[in-house]
Amino acid sequence: MKNSILAACICLLCACHVETSEKENFTQYVNPFLGTSKMGHVFPGATAPFGMVQLSPQTNFERMFNEDGSYNPDTYKYCAGYQHQDSTIIGFAHTNFSGTGHSDLGDFLVMPTTGELVLDPILTSEHGKGFYSAFSHDSEAASPGYYQVNLDSYNIQAELTASDRVGYHKYTFPKSEEAHIILDMVYNVYHHENKNVWTFIRIENDSLVTGYRQTKGWARTKKVFFAMQFSKPFQSYGHKKYNEETYDGFYRRFNQTENFPEIAGKDIRAYFNFNTEEGESIEMKFALSSVSTDGALKNLNTEIPHWDFKKTRQETQAKWNVELSKINVTTLSLDDKKTFYSALYHTNLSPIIYEDVDGKYRGLDQNIHSSDGFTNYTIFSLWDTYRALHPLFNITQPERNNDMVKSMLAHHDQSVHDMLPIWSHYGNENWCMIGYHATSVIADAMAKNVGDFDHERALQASVNTANVRYFDGLGDYIDYQFVPDDKSHSSVSKTLEYAYNDWCIAQMAIQVGNDSLAEVFLKRSEYYYNVFDTGSGYMRPRLSSGEFREAFDPMDTHGQGFIEGNAWNYGLYVPQDIDKMIDLMGGNTRFTQHLDSLFTMEIDEKYIEKHEDITRDGIIGNYVHGNEPGHHIPYLYNWTGHPEKTQERVRMIMQTMYDPTVEGLCGNDDAGQMSAWYVLSALGFYSVTPGSSDYAIGSPLVKVALVTFPNGKTTKIVARNQNRDNIYVSSVTVNGRKIENNTLTHKELTGGGEIIFEMTSTFSK
Amino acid sequence: MKNSILAACICLLCACHVETSEKENFTQYVNPFLGTSKMGHVFPGATAPFGMVQLSPQTNFERMFNEDGSYNPDTYKYCAGYQHQDSTIIGFAHTNFSGTGHSDLGDFLVMPTTGELVLDPILTSEHGKGFYSAFSHDSEAASPGYYQVNLDSYNIQAELTASDRVGYHKYTFPKSEEAHIILDMVYNVYHHENKNVWTFIRIENDSLVTGYRQTKGWARTKKVFFAMQFSKPFQSYGHKKYNEETYDGFYRRFNQTENFPEIAGKDIRAYFNFNTEEGESIEMKFALSSVSTDGALKNLNTEIPHWDFKKTRQETQAKWNVELSKINVTTLSLDDKKTFYSALYHTNLSPIIYEDVDGKYRGLDQNIHSSDGFTNYTIFSLWDTYRALHPLFNITQPERNNDMVKSMLAHHDQSVHDMLPIWSHYGNENWCMIGYHATSVIADAMAKNVGDFDHERALQASVNTANVRYFDGLGDYIDYQFVPDDKSHSSVSKTLEYAYNDWCIAQMAIQVGNDSLAEVFLKRSEYYYNVFDTGSGYMRPRLSSGEFREAFDPMDTHGQGFIEGNAWNYGLYVPQDIDKMIDLMGGNTRFTQHLDSLFTMEIDEKYIEKHEDITRDGIIGNYVHGNEPGHHIPYLYNWTGHPEKTQERVRMIMQTMYDPTVEGLCGNDDAGQMSAWYVLSALGFYSVTPGSSDYAIGSPLVKVALVTFPNGKTTKIVARNQNRDNIYVSSVTVNGRKIENNTLTHKELTGGGEIIFEMTSTFSK
Repeated sequence: MKNSILAACICLLCACHVETSEKENFTQYVNPFLGTSKMGHVFPGATAPFGMVQLSPQTNFERMFNEDGSYNPDTYKYCAGYQHQDSTIIGFAHTNFSGTGHSDLGDFLVMPTTGELVLDPILTSEHGKGFYSAFSHDSEAASPGYYQVNLDSYNIQAELTASDRVGYHKYTFPKSEEAHIILDMVYNVYHHENKNVWTFIRIENDSLVTGYRQTKGWARTKKVFFAMQFSKPFQSYGHKKYNEETYDGFYRRFNQTENFPEIAGKDIRAYFNFNTEEGESIEMKFALSSVSTDGALKNLNTEIPHWDFKKTRQETQAKWNVELSKINVTTLSLDDKKTFYSALYHTNLSPIIYEDVDGKYRGLDQNIHSSDGFTNYTIFSLWDTYRALHPLFNITQPERNNDMVKSMLAHHDQSVHDMLPIWSHYGNENWCMIGYHATSVIADAMAKNVGDFDHERALQASVNTANVRYFDGLGDYIDYQFVPDDKSHSSVSKTLEYAYNDWCIAQMAIQVGNDSLAEVFLKRSEYYYNVFDTGSGYMRPRLSSGEFREAFDPMDTHGQGFIEGNAWNYGLYVPQDIDKMIDLMGGNTRFTQHLDSLFTMEIDEKYIEKHEDITRDGIIGNYVHGNEPGHHIPYLYNWTGHPEKTQERVRMIMQTMYDPTVEGLCGNDDAGQMSAWYVLSALGFYSVTPGSSDYAIGSPLVKVALVTFPNGKTTKIVARNQNRDNIYVSSVTVNGRKIENNTLTHKELTGGGEIIFEMTSTFSK
Repeated sequence: MKNSILAACICLLCACHVETSEKENFTQYVNPFLGTSKMGHVFPGATAPFGMVQLSPQTNFERMFNEDGSYNPDTYKYCAGYQHQDSTIIGFAHTNFSGTGHSDLGDFLVMPTTGELVLDPILTSEHGKGFYSAFSHDSEAASPGYYQVNLDSYNIQAELTASDRVGYHKYTFPKSEEAHIILDMVYNVYHHENKNVWTFIRIENDSLVTGYRQTKGWARTKKVFFAMQFSKPFQSYGHKKYNEETYDGFYRRFNQTENFPEIAGKDIRAYFNFNTEEGESIEMKFALSSVSTDGALKNLNTEIPHWDFKKTRQETQAKWNVELSKINVTTLSLDDKKTFYSALYHTNLSPIIYEDVDGKYRGLDQNIHSSDGFTNYTIFSLWDTYRALHPLFNITQPERNNDMVKSMLAHHDQSVHDMLPIWSHYGNENWCMIGYHATSVIADAMAKNVGDFDHERALQASVNTANVRYFDGLGDYIDYQFVPDDKSHSSVSKTLEYAYNDWCIAQMAIQVGNDSLAEVFLKRSEYYYNVFDTGSGYMRPRLSSGEFREAFDPMDTHGQGFIEGNAWNYGLYVPQDIDKMIDLMGGNTRFTQHLDSLFTMEIDEKYIEKHEDITRDGIIGNYVHGNEPGHHIPYLYNWTGHPEKTQERVRMIMQTMYDPTVEGLCGNDDAGQMSAWYVLSALGFYSVTPGSSDYAIGSPLVKVALVTFPNGKTTKIVARNQNRDNIYVSSVTVNGRKIENNTLTHKELTGGGEIIFEMTSTFSK
């Protein structure tokens, strides 16, 4: 209550408040541990906003495959390397995904130890001990750009910070004549023996090491280079090879294992030995590059030319404050504020900067490219992030989103398929999930007039993408006007999403004035009709014969033509044509009932256990907030004449599915999509149809939000009479003008001024 | 006899003769099949002089390791991929070593076939057939820059030519609806399953393919990129992966095996399908790069922008004629002429050009470097080639040798060890054999005033190399003033060679006026004393205690402190101090007897069978011409007052160990060293001590040789009264001045004019 009063006060002093907010440290509200338990798949480590280096502790890990070759389901929760319930740390890795639904990375695990040298992270038959350390959350702390923990097994305090491309380690040792820093080039997130392709290490001098690692994980041909500089010369060093395959030349006639500065092979762990005094800190800067060790060195020397850990930590914290201060919220509680800023933090972790300080990066064709006039980004989890993350970027990060579109166009130009990215990272397309949702990101930016990318080129790239016949049933979709279920799995999901993506392309074509193309793609955008079965009232798998498939269970999420969803929820996916979809499904009343049932029905346990992404926590009835295909569904009541039900559901979801604890995410954060849903919804609206400039009104959770745009304009969002009970929105005015149809436009949002939500405890139409 | 008369005639018409020689096609005298049988390790394929692409047939190959893991000794003879006695060809590979004593390469095997597609080169349990083809030598032909053969199993005529960086294939097919061109990315010379690290292929369009292969063979981190362009679009294509390790993304939901343009994995064979008419030729250009596929494309489009096979063939033949015409010889027989020009040809196959047309190349540090002011070369088999090949280059290829020195200096600058190359290829040091003989190459060029490389820098690089303590016993050598046998194997060989190399460094220091350095290295150059055992009269393994090792067999080539030699022959290795060595070993008479015995003694079979490099063919008594450590020995009689014995031995070796047939090499050609010995000896002299500008006079085999130098000067070498019996040299005059001590200087040789050897059938002092 005290908070509310304070907020109300601030609210009366707008100008002042802005002044104040610029000096406020918003990083204090971020809990990097939020969601690090169970299935959030986020990490607590140190990173700059959208930083290439995401330096984070890796806790006692599980192998993806058991020794008998069987899949180990426990692996999945280690997508970001860290699980909060674990009690041991095996080291700090420089690359991590935030919240993804599958994984990779974990490059360059570094671990400081003392005592007898142990080179395996975990117990092996060879060693009675791994180099892992016990740790306690009592000694652990994290804030944006900073992480610290005591490694209790060695009495070492570890602190981490990072600039965009350089991780900065500070290890405070006890007195020891056997202090080691281990560089583990074997470890991978989703570790299995065969992921490494090649590793290469050069000891350039007694304090500088360079090298690279090539892996064949989710990114099939991934290469990351590094330069690693110590603040103190090591006394000696060495390595061990963990496979017998390496050919060491015909004559192995002198010792190349210890103090020999050139190391190469498949699976290698290297170590560097020091003498330390009690309380002596050894610092280490670790720069990445996708280009070369030369590139990594350039990044290192440009970004952190000094040995001032605190300076880097403060610079990165300042960068975070710039990002977080773009939305200055007053909330009903400190917990809400923490949840909000932690969510906003999570929306700034990917895509990541993927180029050296000189603009060079390794492209899809494995050639070195230069970003010309933009910053190149990677990690595009587009099936997730087109929904709310990129729309949020058009509010909070329009300049970066412009660069992300340009990065996707560069991807297209490098792609041998002439395709925009589907799910791409580190110069690789991993083909994860369906649709070609880069088109949505582009159409959304165009609709909102964000960026200066070439619209004609973007349209052409989208058209090229939409015509790659060998891609995932697309040829059949074009020929049959739906994806036949006997030719391609997930046939209904694909049909629905291709149709939406085609609508996005049509919007681009309209915008650039290409009517004939617009006509082609508007026609394609209606193909969703063709999988609607009027008989059952569901979107349903259809065969190439034209018949709907006989066997059909609308509750099952497997083998029913949908992917990560069922006909009940995923079948409501026609964001480009919601009114017509409602008509198809029986009109407003019937559709409202369908939504009501969706949120209230009892789901048989058998349908839930099959889905690895979601736990009971992320589910409300048959609505699955823990995964993306339904994220727009709570807002669909706006189209049935029952916005109050949207408001109820949205508030309920925000209050029950999010909190600022380690269990504060009810499913994978999915590269920020889950958090972006929260940020937008907390502000009172959501991007139901990316590619249009409209937002659907929900029910804001904040009391006040001051949003600052790059052009200097600010828009203040005020939820008058906000409290836990006043969840209904009786009116919304933009600079005094009342808005209609529960729709806010991007122009209204970003035009500056004041948007006032009148909140009430009861809904009256 | 007819030949001799003709030669004598020409000899009288000098000016005319030069005129004529410029138009003469010397390539007609080259037999690329010379030495392709047994242990010559040379290849008959198509290449430009020092070309990066050395495109050659690979005959039915053997795996290096048998299925039970044991070494297969038959592998060794396939060092260059081809054995003349074989009856099947499995394809044409773009990189091959010429004559080396160990192997690697064999990149990008291409094979045209017809009929049912078979993707394994040899019989496998899966297939009843491999894609190999029978062939006959009747249809096979080769000349410098050109190779052709009929692939009898498919009725395909294959023709190959090459520019510096591009292989050019021409396949004339029968009528077929199932014509294939296979790109085998699995095959390696010294094939074993685990050599590939990664392969990557992109089908850029219906006639252009790019990609790369990374291997971990002798070059531990080797990457070669390619661009492959067909003259006719393929109708379809596909690939097969030969290992199960590759991770294909989480969703393998559409066909990525056929007509899918992006292929990556460890072991891959790809195929391209065509319809062909009877007699239709499909041509294919295949460019290499160490940098990138962009680089390969640039090389392709720059070097062969057309589809005129004949033009490329003629251009490359013309390049060969430029190289071969530098020494225009008249010989006693056509066979001698063929042997001579084939030897000269073999001295122009390596080192190879290792940079793109724009000067970029992948260095030792795996970064991309640009050659600034020189052409970068690789494949330095220096323990072999410093002896006669690089000295020959100072006569025939001074500009290239200058670039080779600069390439070695660039290697030093990229080396994390600060070392000059030992045995390097494709941006890798493979540490093969002993010593640091790059110092010899540099000292020899400096002594002969060849090139414009930076002498101070070259000296510093040499000094750095000579002080890398962890290298191969070098620290012990410095500390003990010899390599102790209890600390390092091959201890005597190393001591002798380090001492010689140190003398080379001293010569550089003298030349640049650094007296103190010269003193240091002159002292080191005397360390050979320290392994001479006055008791036994042999160079002998010595222990760190200072005692000579008790167990010692001066005839054995294994475990006696020598490598690829024994105390009897390798012990005569003090090229920098021959007079003192002779003194040590008892003076002229005793040493002469030692040499006499060496050439005449009966060797127990047990000593020969142990040595894989040499067959009985390459051995005269205990003198081993089939390997390098003794190549200077026949010339040592010059120092004992018995030059006539040198003349006898040298003529005998030339006449018995070389001929223009497939068996015309008595051991590995060793990157041209064996051939260079022949070329120099046939001209009448040899580089006994590279690093001095002196040549030891032998007995010329030619009748006349007109040597043209880059500055336009010509020196005519005339062996007056030359015939098979007149093997003794009664006098040598340079422009009328008689030379002394059986020593010709480089200045005398290259100064222009006439060098006349008076040949006689009996020797009189």
